[in-house]
Order: sequence, then structure tokens, then C-alpha cells
Amino acid sequence: MSVIVVGSMAFDAIETPFGKSDKIVGGAATYIAWCASNFTNVNQISVVGGDFPQEELDALSARGVALDGVEIKKNEKSFFWSGKYHLDMNSRDTLVTELNVLEHFKPVVPDSYQDAEFVMLGNLQPSVQMSVINQLTHRPKLIVMDTMNLWMDIAMDDLKAVLKKIDVLMINDSEARQLSGDYSLVRAAKTIMAMGPKFLIIKKGEHGALLFHEDKVFFAPALPLEEVFDPTGAGDTFAGGFIGHIAKTKDISFENMKTAIIVGSAMASFCVEKFGTQRLREISKEDIANRLQEFVQLVNFDIDLV
Amino acid sequence: MSVIVVGSMAFDAIETPFGKSDKIVGGAATYIAWCASNFTNVNQISVVGGDFPQEELDALSARGVALDGVEIKKNEKSFFWSGKYHLDMNSRDTLVTELNVLEHFKPVVPDSYQDAEFVMLGNLQPSVQMSVINQLTHRPKLIVMDTMNLWMDIAMDDLKAVLKKIDVLMINDSEARQLSGDYSLVRAAKTIMAMGPKFLIIKKGEHGALLFHEDKVFFAPALPLEEVFDPTGAGDTFAGGFIGHIAKTKDISFENMKTAIIVGSAMASFCVEKFGTQRLREISKEDIANRLQEFVQLVNFDIDLV
Repeated sequence: MSVIVVGSMAFDAIETPFGKSDKIVGGAATYIAWCASNFTNVNQISVVGGDFPQEELDALSARGVALDGVEIKKNEKSFFWSGKYHLDMNSRDTLVTELNVLEHFKPVVPDSYQDAEFVMLGNLQPSVQMSVINQLTHRPKLIVMDTMNLWMDIAMDDLKAVLKKIDVLMINDSEARQLSGDYSLVRAAKTIMAMGPKFLIIKKGEHGALLFHEDKVFFAPALPLEEVFDPTGAGDTFAGGFIGHIAKTKDISFENMKTAIIVGSAMASFCVEKFGTQRLREISKEDIANRLQEFVQLVNFDIDLV
Repeated sequence: MSVIVVGSMAFDAIETPFGKSDKIVGGAATYIAWCASNFTNVNQISVVGGDFPQEELDALSARGVALDGVEIKKNEKSFFWSGKYHLDMNSRDTLVTELNVLEHFKPVVPDSYQDAEFVMLGNLQPSVQMSVINQLTHRPKLIVMDTMNLWMDIAMDDLKAVLKKIDVLMINDSEARQLSGDYSLVRAAKTIMAMGPKFLIIKKGEHGALLFHEDKVFFAPALPLEEVFDPTGAGDTFAGGFIGHIAKTKDISFENMKTAIIVGSAMASFCVEKFGTQRLREISKEDIANRLQEFVQLVNFDIDLV
């Protein structure tokens, strides 16, 4: 069992109402790999500059993350993003975006990755996501894709082309509204599934996530936390937990995706407890099992009484 | 099994992105009674003017709602509220508020109501809610209370006095933040429970509801709907479903309150499908049972696979 993960590995500088980080390691694929490696082998595809810390790569290697597909451009700098969160933590301002190595990213899928049955396309330019799909020598069991509003603004045709090739789309509520042109998320889901993906996950941050498939819907709450310390990477961590559980169980049924979304939500609830990937590095299998039990308690009810 | 319900019976005029109603029957106690009467006998306490339709009172009577505690002030007008919802349906502007009969409302608890074991205090001036509590000859098994930000602004001392007398407080997320002075709902819940209520329900509209008790928390989602046609009365209907289920089962444990919140959420999901109380008048026991099954499907997952 293994998962191909494609996405950025980068530096972030984050400001929240609770504090300010230095320039720390971030990037969608970094969060996904730290998270998914709890459940499955990860075949990482990314690009970093010579400034990216070797210790970070070594730490991922030690967790079973294959790095053959991570290009290191020694004379260039890694992607850098800096942002500041508002009090409600659901919205943020981007302060700095330096594409650096990401500007001319041409991912190459190593031969050693070709037996992976699952693919997680982290948020990237749609044409880059497409080039990964086109390099695969066989159709994986499941291709999951994240994207963002920027690509809807500037690369909608490319995005629509990728949507036809994937199985599960993962976006947030405002992106679902933008992509569908419909305010109602239930109607938006129908419109978006007609564009290609058979499954749609709409992330609502602290308000949980919805999974749509045909006429079925499932809801996973976010764990109510005293403090959301830093939401950066929560969506990527959610994706890592989702694809990690799917890869571990090799079961792509709607029923199993429900569980996968709960796993994603549980993992995301760890991510936000500290800056960056710090909390994801600390947690044990037991922490994860306990957190999953908290989700059972959070939503479990007995309807026989009615 | 019966429930004392206290609150307004009134007229509303509602504007939503989907349309505009005439002056229709509304009021917290009206919604609560229409809803709770699916599960239990209701002992209604309210005040209306001579303009309030006799057919409405007859229709409630026919459902087992006792009206001995509903005062009719023949020469006065009923409470009137008019409001306009924004596109997101979570926020609204009040256009008109005419207190009329509500201005000098002095509720009287009829002797025939004194054996009720459960009390639902709909949103009203805290001193009016307190006067009902003070008239009760024995302490009910459970007193549930709704309130609103207005009373936090102009009658906080009275509100705090009532909070010491009740068991379950039901407010929305912005009210919980205002009452506690804390943005985090988890911390807000602790602060508010220290003010008196042993249970706290925080309603988040389309994002569901949270139940807090000691260090426990339960989450009930709202049903994802294609269209929220008119949110007026959804919170009161939720309250009616909650207290209705509790009264029917006579079980005030945290476990049973979880189910009660799901019942409240299911009933609220009907309420918003049409203007006013219209949908609540139409639904059958079978509709309710089917809707509850939808909630089971919506949140039920199998974590043994993990």
C-alpha cells in the first residue's frame, strides 16, 4: 500500500492572534506526508531549493516517505508564503508569496512510484497536477485532488480538464460556491460532481466537512477546541488523514470514505494545536486512537429511543 | 408527561432572498408548541391581542396544546415583528418591532399546569421568565431556557439571576461569546456553566449545535438542505423538539439529551423549508421518523476499521 503525494514543500511565516512564527517548514505536501505516513507509505513528489533543511528530508525519510520524486534545486530558493490570521481563524491575509522553485516546477514521477494505487494531488497549478496524472502508467484506484480559488480565477479551463480525470475533489465552502456559481452547498455539490469527480468533500474549517456522493451526504464535525493555535496546514493534514486511511484499508467505498473523513478531521485537530507541523511530529498511534474515540463520543447518539 | 411552554405568540412579516410573506402567525411559543406537540402534551403560557386568529388557537388545541395560560387581550394588538434575511440566511435585519401586548405581559401559571415536569422558557425578558419559575409550586425535573443578546445588553443582572435557576441554557454562538466574553466556544461554555446552567446548548444555525455538560461535548449537525427557505422559528422549533423528546422519554441524562438535540435538529430542518409554521403543520410521524433516519445516515460511521 502506498500513496503518491504531489505538492509544495516550502517555508511559511505565520502570524496568528496567539503569536508569530519564524520562517518554518511548511507546504501542502509536507503536511500531507507527515500525516499520511502514520497510515501508509508515501511516495513524495515536490521541489525544494538548496535552502530547504536536510534534517527535514531525513526526518520524513525515517517515517517511510520516499523522496526519489523530490527535486532539489541547489542554487534556487524554496517556495515561501507568509500570512496573518484574523481573530476568527477562518480568514487570513497573505502578506508575501515568493514562488521561487515552484515557478517552473515540472514534476517527474519516478518508476519506483508507478505501483502506487492511490494519488493525492495537493493544491498546485492544475496543469502541473495534470502532468502527474499523464505520467502514470496505470490508472490508480483513487485520485484525490485539492485546489484553490486562485486557479478558478486564472486557470479555470485547465482546472476543469483535471476535474474530469479525478475521483475525489476536496475544496472549502467558498471555493465550492465559486466553482459552481451556487450559494447552496447541496446544489453546488451536484453541479461540481457533474464536472467529473464522483465524490466531493467540502471543508468548512471549524464547522467540519461534508462528503457528497450521488444523492448521499455525510457530515464530519471538527473537534471543538479551546484554542485553534495555527490553522495553517489543517486542510492538507485533513487530506493526508483521508488518503492515508483509504490507502491503509484499500477500500474506496462511500462507507469507508466516511471513516476516512473522520480520520482526516482527527488529524487536522492535532495540526492546529501548535505552529506548523510541530504537533504532527509529536503524536503517537495512541494519541490518534484516543482522538478518534473523542470523535465517536462527539457524534454518537442513540436514536432507538425515539 | 407534559411541558410548560412560555413565550410569545405573535405576527411576523418575513422577507428572504426567496420571497416575502404576508403578516403570518409566528412567535417563539407558537413554533415550540407546534413542534413539541408531536411528542408530548403542551401547557402553553402566552399573551395575544384580539387580532390573533381563533383558528390558530383551535388548531393548537386540537393537537393537545392546553391554552388555559394564554391570555387574550381583546382590545389590544398582538406582538409584531418584521425582518429581512441576508443571502447567507444566518444574519437578518429587524425592520419593525411592535411589542403591543408583550409590553406588560404578566404570565400566570394556571393550577392545572402545576403537575408539569418540564419547562421550556422561550426567549422573553428575563424578569418575565423568572416570574414563571417563581410561580411553580414544585421544582420541575428540567427547566430549559432560551434568551438573546438584547437581554445581555439591557437586563444582564436579571438574566444572571434566571441562569442560577435553570438547568439547560440554549443560545447561539454569538450570544455565547457575548455572555462569556470569550471567543472560544469551548472556554465560553465553561464560563457560562459556572453561571448556573448544568447543560449548555450552543446553536450555530446551518453549522449545527453543540451540547456541553461538565467536561463532555456532543455535536449535532444541521441537515444540509438545497434551500433554506425561511429560517424564522428554526431555533424555537429546535427547542420544541428538544424538550418534546425529553418530556416523552422522561430521561434527563446527557446521553438522552444527545438524542433530544438530534430530534431538535431534525424538526428545525422541516421548519426552514417553508414560510412560518406551515411545514410544521403538514408533517406526519412518518416524515419525522424518516428525517431522523437521515440524521443517522448523515453522521454514522464505522471506526472499527481504523
